[in-house]
Amino acid sequence: MNSTRHFASDNNAPVHPAIFDALAAANVGHVRAYGDDPVTHAMEAGFREHFGPLARAHCVFGGTGANVLGLQALARPHEAVMCAEGAHIDVDECGAPEHYTGCKLISIATNDGKITPELVASHIHGVGDQHHVQPRVVSITQSSEVGSVYEPREIRSLAEFAHARSMYLHMDGARIANAAAALDVPLRAITTDVGVDVLSFGGTKNGLMGAEAVVFFNPAIGNEFKFLRKQGMQLASKMRFVAAQLARVLEGDLWKANASRANAMARRLGDGVSTIDGVKLAYPVCANGVFAILPKEWIAPLQERSFFYVWDEQRSVVRWMCSFDTTSDDVDGLIAACKSMSQRK
Amino acid sequence: MNSTRHFASDNNAPVHPAIFDALAAANVGHVRAYGDDPVTHAMEAGFREHFGPLARAHCVFGGTGANVLGLQALARPHEAVMCAEGAHIDVDECGAPEHYTGCKLISIATNDGKITPELVASHIHGVGDQHHVQPRVVSITQSSEVGSVYEPREIRSLAEFAHARSMYLHMDGARIANAAAALDVPLRAITTDVGVDVLSFGGTKNGLMGAEAVVFFNPAIGNEFKFLRKQGMQLASKMRFVAAQLARVLEGDLWKANASRANAMARRLGDGVSTIDGVKLAYPVCANGVFAILPKEWIAPLQERSFFYVWDEQRSVVRWMCSFDTTSDDVDGLIAACKSMSQRK
Amino acid sequence: MNSTRHFASDNNAPVHPAIFDALAAANVGHVRAYGDDPVTHAMEAGFREHFGPLARAHCVFGGTGANVLGLQALARPHEAVMCAEGAHIDVDECGAPEHYTGCKLISIATNDGKITPELVASHIHGVGDQHHVQPRVVSITQSSEVGSVYEPREIRSLAEFAHARSMYLHMDGARIANAAAALDVPLRAITTDVGVDVLSFGGTKNGLMGAEAVVFFNPAIGNEFKFLRKQGMQLASKMRFVAAQLARVLEGDLWKANASRANAMARRLGDGVSTIDGVKLAYPVCANGVFAILPKEWIAPLQERSFFYVWDEQRSVVRWMCSFDTTSDDVDGLIAACKSMSQRK
Amino acid sequence: MNSTRHFASDNNAPVHPAIFDALAAANVGHVRAYGDDPVTHAMEAGFREHFGPLARAHCVFGGTGANVLGLQALARPHEAVMCAEGAHIDVDECGAPEHYTGCKLISIATNDGKITPELVASHIHGVGDQHHVQPRVVSITQSSEVGSVYEPREIRSLAEFAHARSMYLHMDGARIANAAAALDVPLRAITTDVGVDVLSFGGTKNGLMGAEAVVFFNPAIGNEFKFLRKQGMQLASKMRFVAAQLARVLEGDLWKANASRANAMARRLGDGVSTIDGVKLAYPVCANGVFAILPKEWIAPLQERSFFYVWDEQRSVVRWMCSFDTTSDDVDGLIAACKSMSQRK
Repeated sequence: MNSTRHFASDNNAPVHPAIFDALAAANVGHVRAYGDDPVTHAMEAGFREHFGPLARAHCVFGGTGANVLGLQALARPHEAVMCAEGAHIDVDECGAPEHYTGCKLISIATNDGKITPELVASHIHGVGDQHHVQPRVVSITQSSEVGSVYEPREIRSLAEFAHARSMYLHMDGARIANAAAALDVPLRAITTDVGVDVLSFGGTKNGLMGAEAVVFFNPAIGNEFKFLRKQGMQLASKMRFVAAQLARVLEGDLWKANASRANAMARRLGDGVSTIDGVKLAYPVCANGVFAILPKEWIAPLQERSFFYVWDEQRSVVRWMCSFDTTSDDVDGLIAACKSMSQRK
Repeated sequence: MNSTRHFASDNNAPVHPAIFDALAAANVGHVRAYGDDPVTHAMEAGFREHFGPLARAHCVFGGTGANVLGLQALARPHEAVMCAEGAHIDVDECGAPEHYTGCKLISIATNDGKITPELVASHIHGVGDQHHVQPRVVSITQSSEVGSVYEPREIRSLAEFAHARSMYLHMDGARIANAAAALDVPLRAITTDVGVDVLSFGGTKNGLMGAEAVVFFNPAIGNEFKFLRKQGMQLASKMRFVAAQLARVLEGDLWKANASRANAMARRLGDGVSTIDGVKLAYPVCANGVFAILPKEWIAPLQERSFFYVWDEQRSVVRWMCSFDTTSDDVDGLIAACKSMSQRK
Repeated sequence: MNSTRHFASDNNAPVHPAIFDALAAANVGHVRAYGDDPVTHAMEAGFREHFGPLARAHCVFGGTGANVLGLQALARPHEAVMCAEGAHIDVDECGAPEHYTGCKLISIATNDGKITPELVASHIHGVGDQHHVQPRVVSITQSSEVGSVYEPREIRSLAEFAHARSMYLHMDGARIANAAAALDVPLRAITTDVGVDVLSFGGTKNGLMGAEAVVFFNPAIGNEFKFLRKQGMQLASKMRFVAAQLARVLEGDLWKANASRANAMARRLGDGVSTIDGVKLAYPVCANGVFAILPKEWIAPLQERSFFYVWDEQRSVVRWMCSFDTTSDDVDGLIAACKSMSQRK
Repeated sequence: MNSTRHFASDNNAPVHPAIFDALAAANVGHVRAYGDDPVTHAMEAGFREHFGPLARAHCVFGGTGANVLGLQALARPHEAVMCAEGAHIDVDECGAPEHYTGCKLISIATNDGKITPELVASHIHGVGDQHHVQPRVVSITQSSEVGSVYEPREIRSLAEFAHARSMYLHMDGARIANAAAALDVPLRAITTDVGVDVLSFGGTKNGLMGAEAVVFFNPAIGNEFKFLRKQGMQLASKMRFVAAQLARVLEGDLWKANASRANAMARRLGDGVSTIDGVKLAYPVCANGVFAILPKEWIAPLQERSFFYVWDEQRSVVRWMCSFDTTSDDVDGLIAACKSMSQRK
């Protein structure tokens, strides 16, 4: 594999220069640790600007930590979290949600990575019955693990469904920027305004070095989150350096610029490969991921050229992720490589 | 409070310029996430150089994560971890060790923050009795929470004590650099060479932005640590940026330069204040912390000048921590301020 | 509902008179608590007789406790337990396995409540990959939640599959007596002899007052179980009264007499109702449960007569369980009631 | 050791005949499992009678289960439970409270097994500080592990202290009957009437076969306890047989008769041995335990005669527990044996 950008994941990308500059700017003198510093206060203000005056944002180190602690704030161990089959919390966090919160996850098969009130309803059983875990949280991923994007009204209907049953709506927003950019709406349009209770706000996959936030919108919850975060091993001592990244990505809508670029590159890639004989898109390209069904024998040579992951061995689906720094040349190079594979047969 | 350096904690300091440069150097192109990258491999090699060829180092985000996951690798929930009263794991991690590992902590009163085989022995009860948690780990902090330092032979005697009872020796090395610098020995002299099984290697308090490592020396343990780390929410996706800091601090013994400077400043401060009428050192100054007993009425005015924490309200003990960037002027300024308080009375 | 026997569950039945007599016999004088008593030693010997000389049996209070602690002895929190969808551990224990062991459960859809090596294999993913829980235990229920029974060779093939992958085979034997009786084999033929590593031996549903056992067959595991049991809140202080029940049910093959009677009554009931117009068996009757598809409007009137549970609302499946004290008259009465419903339409 | 009654523990005793009769009476016909049966309803009514109309009692299997689940109903994992050093929850439950609730226990040294508001206050630190577990529960044992008894006013002052700090008061009442009998007050005088929030009501040590209850007095808590109990592996399927014991011991104040007898025997024993040369009482005899300091060389021969436990090896303290069936002859026999040891020297 050569040293150029590749399509393995948006977290294979480096740090956006503006983010790096923000880190440098924060690296001056002594400030109090653990969040009582001006940079962290500015980050909190940034979230209020983007998500409304009641949004309370808390830095954490990573996405799994954000998800697990957000869920813990919502559910006790005898309660259950309902999510799409294949959700990150279900299959990519090494069981952290179960181990740490004690809760069972109930996973729901979907066609496109998106759950609906109907699908959730069909998996609710035994409410009030002591033998069964009690559904307390609906968790959705925006944009989803297969690159689909929930419309604001779809989120609202899930929130209404949940709230009508004394349940909460949690959003894993590891790629929320890509979703909002794809929908061309502000961040609050798919969170605050449509009833999301808690958000894992993703930064790392959108050009940050390593920074996520747990954001509470519902004033009734999360008030003890600082203890959950510390006990959950997610309290940064030199927090200014986590906060600086988040503050900066919100500033001047850098989040949107980065995500839009990644989305545009994915669209270009999807458009390019879908016309190639032998290639079929497994899912529509909505955000920054392209899921393509390829002839099995193409995969190794293409990976050789530039690394990426096989998403589904059986169906021969590969995943190509674009990031803030993906260029048209990168994309066109991959399209050309696919074309050449196609012509070779 | 003005904007100069203060003595609140070594984690109030910024990032050492060389570390920042290492981050910049790592910020080039795409690399695989989660540790399969050249920077992380270099970091691992750095630990082998300093700690011997069998040392296996794993990056984590913070010190609490390092301690908790290191302990989890050693003990099952019905087993106990024995540590000094006031140990970070006992009182400063919001119960993370208990919640996450399920283990009970057995805390042992000490005069100087250091436990001994005799003290540990006096707290071992009910071995083999199903009603009692079974002692499995002795955990020590080097340098300790009150600034004392274990001699290599003291560590070896604890390791021998532990191993003779099928127990393990864990070291919380949040400030291991300060301890090694104080003893003027290489890092392995207080770890690998004297029987430590697992180390939390601290970086953040020694000039890093945020990076610690769990290091296994005993080949029989820690082989499944990658799963523990992921499930423990401590797996960085862009790991190169955690690894780069650790690799750099080991390079050219930057760890020692930083720690020696902090230690020297603490010594200067300890020496300076101990001659002042009204001030008494609560503990000898061995590493980078100064614990001084002050007249209660001095505290607020001195904090006003430059923030620090009260360590023990009842005994009126304050803690002054020096860091890699503390200057003689900073120290002399604090000494002068104390003197002026003393003369005021 | 009148006061006669009903078909709701085998744990709605009273205590078998011989078991009650055994309790009375144990109620003499003082003995040491927590299992160091002659009755418990006799119980342990009884298990060795029935399951072979290496079987180590430990009393616990209930079936959920037996399952959870048996699984905990086999798996660490980052490992997974694989079981049939609808398994008791998956849906009827209020999330106790996840909360207590920290492990994720991976549930596998089946037609008949029985999993196979092929089905298990198709759910094994990400072995060795730190992002994914690591499969460690295959758990089967004998007889299953829908009344099916694993043949000895089916169990052996699952054990071989598991052991070839460094996994363990766990059996939830809440109704193991019914399975062994149905197959007309000794208890060891479906456990010890075919590779089961740990068994939850069920007593309560077979005429006991409240007593189950966790039985280890694999000498490499379970050696610290006494600590797991105490920490797991399953250590009876007056253990003789739990042990006496288990010892007695093994004595003279009372387990088999009780289970055979229940099985025979279920067969009689299955045979009787399956000829009735409007009734269809949802599953073959193998053990002591009858799962029948009824017209929805029959259910309430039949429940009025004698209580039972609806198993699957959507498919209109009801569950009728027979117990050691079910009589031919009870069965014939229910058959007659169904017939009369049938004729009414 | 011969087969007569001994003084090892009140749980070495058999089942009181009236309790056994109640079990027999409950053993008639089919009833619904899991607590929806007439015997359980009668038990619940019995608790309301003794503890007031708001008392809600839930059967569990054992004392550790009662304590752990009661505490879990009160505290989240980042909160702490404060108790006396040597409390059963602290040292005799194999770490079950920590593992299951996730909470840290803060133990408080006492002279007599009883904590006071002042003692508790001196161990409260870091309230509101994210680094520290947050005190949420004060847990007391009545009668205590060393046989002392809290006066109603002492309990009330602890309850007031706790409630003033948004904390709860939990009582481990494994021997509450002995305490109430010693004080000659009704059960509610040391619970409901003085502000206890949750009680572990002990039955097993007072002549039952195996039955305890978690009783909630504060209407604001415990409303989801049925889920906690099931997930906590403490839900009996044939619950009538647990409930029958509790119902019976409340009936006609059998609890008091049994406990008074045990207390009287302990008093007789304490009085008898305290006059013997070489014997000193370690604690005053308040309930049914006698803690005596003996010459070390007496212990083995006395244990030979009739088994009991050494309570504190270092101080040579032994514990003699009396139970509902201890006779004057048993006591006088032990006194005589001690006398003969005394004369032998």
